[in-house]
Amino acid sequence: MRKGIIVQKFGGTSVANPERIIGVAKRVAATKKKGYDVVVVVSALGGTTDELVDLAGRISKNPAEREMDMLLATGEQVSVALLAMALHELKQEAISLTGAQVGIVTDSSHTKARILDVSTQKLRKELRVGKVVIVAGFQGVNLDQEITTLGRGGSDMTAVALAKVLKAKMCEIYTDVKGVYTADPRIVKDARKLDSISYEEMLELASLGAKVMQARSMEVAGKFNVPMHVRSSFSKKKGTLITKEVRAMEDVLVRGVTAKKDEAKVTICDVPDKPGEASRIFELLAKADINVDMIVQNISRTKATDISFTVPNSDLKKTQEVVQKVIKTIGAKAVTYNKSIAKLSVVGIGMRSHSGVAAKMFKALAAKKVNIEMISTSEIKISCVIQKKDADKAVKAVHKSFGLEKKPKK
Amino acid sequence: MRKGIIVQKFGGTSVANPERIIGVAKRVAATKKKGYDVVVVVSALGGTTDELVDLAGRISKNPAEREMDMLLATGEQVSVALLAMALHELKQEAISLTGAQVGIVTDSSHTKARILDVSTQKLRKELRVGKVVIVAGFQGVNLDQEITTLGRGGSDMTAVALAKVLKAKMCEIYTDVKGVYTADPRIVKDARKLDSISYEEMLELASLGAKVMQARSMEVAGKFNVPMHVRSSFSKKKGTLITKEVRAMEDVLVRGVTAKKDEAKVTICDVPDKPGEASRIFELLAKADINVDMIVQNISRTKATDISFTVPNSDLKKTQEVVQKVIKTIGAKAVTYNKSIAKLSVVGIGMRSHSGVAAKMFKALAAKKVNIEMISTSEIKISCVIQKKDADKAVKAVHKSFGLEKKPKK
Repeated sequence: MRKGIIVQKFGGTSVANPERIIGVAKRVAATKKKGYDVVVVVSALGGTTDELVDLAGRISKNPAEREMDMLLATGEQVSVALLAMALHELKQEAISLTGAQVGIVTDSSHTKARILDVSTQKLRKELRVGKVVIVAGFQGVNLDQEITTLGRGGSDMTAVALAKVLKAKMCEIYTDVKGVYTADPRIVKDARKLDSISYEEMLELASLGAKVMQARSMEVAGKFNVPMHVRSSFSKKKGTLITKEVRAMEDVLVRGVTAKKDEAKVTICDVPDKPGEASRIFELLAKADINVDMIVQNISRTKATDISFTVPNSDLKKTQEVVQKVIKTIGAKAVTYNKSIAKLSVVGIGMRSHSGVAAKMFKALAAKKVNIEMISTSEIKISCVIQKKDADKAVKAVHKSFGLEKKPKK
Repeated sequence: MRKGIIVQKFGGTSVANPERIIGVAKRVAATKKKGYDVVVVVSALGGTTDELVDLAGRISKNPAEREMDMLLATGEQVSVALLAMALHELKQEAISLTGAQVGIVTDSSHTKARILDVSTQKLRKELRVGKVVIVAGFQGVNLDQEITTLGRGGSDMTAVALAKVLKAKMCEIYTDVKGVYTADPRIVKDARKLDSISYEEMLELASLGAKVMQARSMEVAGKFNVPMHVRSSFSKKKGTLITKEVRAMEDVLVRGVTAKKDEAKVTICDVPDKPGEASRIFELLAKADINVDMIVQNISRTKATDISFTVPNSDLKKTQEVVQKVIKTIGAKAVTYNKSIAKLSVVGIGMRSHSGVAAKMFKALAAKKVNIEMISTSEIKISCVIQKKDADKAVKAVHKSFGLEKKPKK
């Protein structure tokens, strides 16, 4: 009697060299021996993708995205073949499959394709005969059999999609950290590993730069309620379970604190206070594919107002081009850019039903003389823009003020 | 008006790094500008295949052939993507295709698959809109969409197969030598580049170890009369045309001289001179997949005979295992092995209608005191086994005796 299907995803550092690939094979074989059907998703060998990008860069400054996908998809294909060989060495039957061979069908947005459909026929056929099925992460094909890739962190999406269509018991994300922490342990010494976290909280943390999982994958996992387990490739200990919101969770005000340091703040001064002005700015930014994050409009003085927003540093140049044009047409007076900022956030489902989180956070920051430049809040998150130099100090202070180093009582 | 299709095949050294890939792109674009439709076949970047084989070797001593194909096929996929990018930089429209995407269908003999069918639909569609089509060499898929590879030198086969189905005007094989020579120019200083050579002669030379083209590809090219041109990636000069036998060619006795140094000679002594004994030996060797080359049976003394044959050095161990068993059952007395041999051959279609070639060859060898251990002849080839240490001296002497350094009068 089979116990059901487990999907295991291993990132690039977990398969960085033959020795690690053999380690992964042992882990996979052990899971299979416990009676589970196992589907493994692997990324490219650590460093491979960067090497390929570099090769392409030596040929073209702006390579066609279709050809980038053709190029990059080879990385995962190498990994799956090698892992299959490693499993064979352990006398475990296994077969490697490319995205195309599985039937991972995506749209045609090369380099950032979205999965439309995953065929389970081939997967189930191979599982039925007792094989471990090893699937190349990060890749698919469109309806014309063109190879596509799912963007950075896309192997997470492959794993979540497979877990969903196969109705897997668990989708395990193996990584080089032990799980999800209340804060970055490199900054906060007594940061605590969480036993569990909700999809929503995890999504906020992911989008805030806690690089454990790709944000979009988390969104999909939550939407379809795919049970997830983030854990270390180098340890047998349990990591962090990601589940639906549960009763016990609600007693916790704040799940974690994080600081994002790769955004810039843009302020457009003296925008005439007429309806539609602001929307015109953000329409143009959206057209230019710029990912605007926080937006704050200050209280209007006289008949003009200041609008501030944050964008990823990588989009700042594009943003400047757009903004320079737009301020003339809307009659704004000036614009300032600031790259020395950080976005400090606290995340927790408990905020929904409790007040006072913001006050506690601001008080902790004030005590350390950290100046707050912008504030924005959502149902389960409060974010403040502060000076980048204050970021680590601020994370520590806020982490302590919420007592995150202590395990909450249930 | 299109001038027709040209297939251009570039080997690993021609695409060893980004600079060379850009060089190849210029060459391809220039052909396209002349008004031809161009299909390009590329091998993996020089060294890549060896690196992948090494990676596999660090995981498994005997990796599954299916997984080796999955692994090795990535090499060519990288090349085609990079070459497409390089052509785009030159403002030449181009698209890369894997073997699967073209529809190169093979049998299921992983690592040494044979092409069953090549679909031209996708190729013609892309050519029609003015694109250069870049096809990953060496690879295909079987009917179950499993990735297969065609064995060492398989990109030649891809090029020949594409040229055949597309009825190409020419199949150009770009390599790091300038063409086909009357002898190895590293050994014979005044060896001459041939303007043209027949398929048959080329096939004999390829199978004799002149590494310009894979022998099997040559066979297929000849069978379907695919016009070929072997030429240098690093020069614009014409190389050597490979064509059907033509009248002018027949006046030439000998086209070239070559020595193969990677075979071993096996002699089984005192084989009882009964019908069927010899065939039993070679049946068993064939079963063990050992490629027996020359076979010579000496004149029978009393009631026993000696049988000698040559095998590739790489098969010698397997051969010894087979032979040790068989000599007992057939009652042979002893067996000797000699790895210090070379096989010296002269090749030429003219031999068919002329005698005296063998005599001239033996005389040249005798004059240099080179001892002949075995002789075998075919319609267009004479081969002698000699001591390996004599090989270079013998090639020079025979080359000179046939006056190959001089261009023949027409």
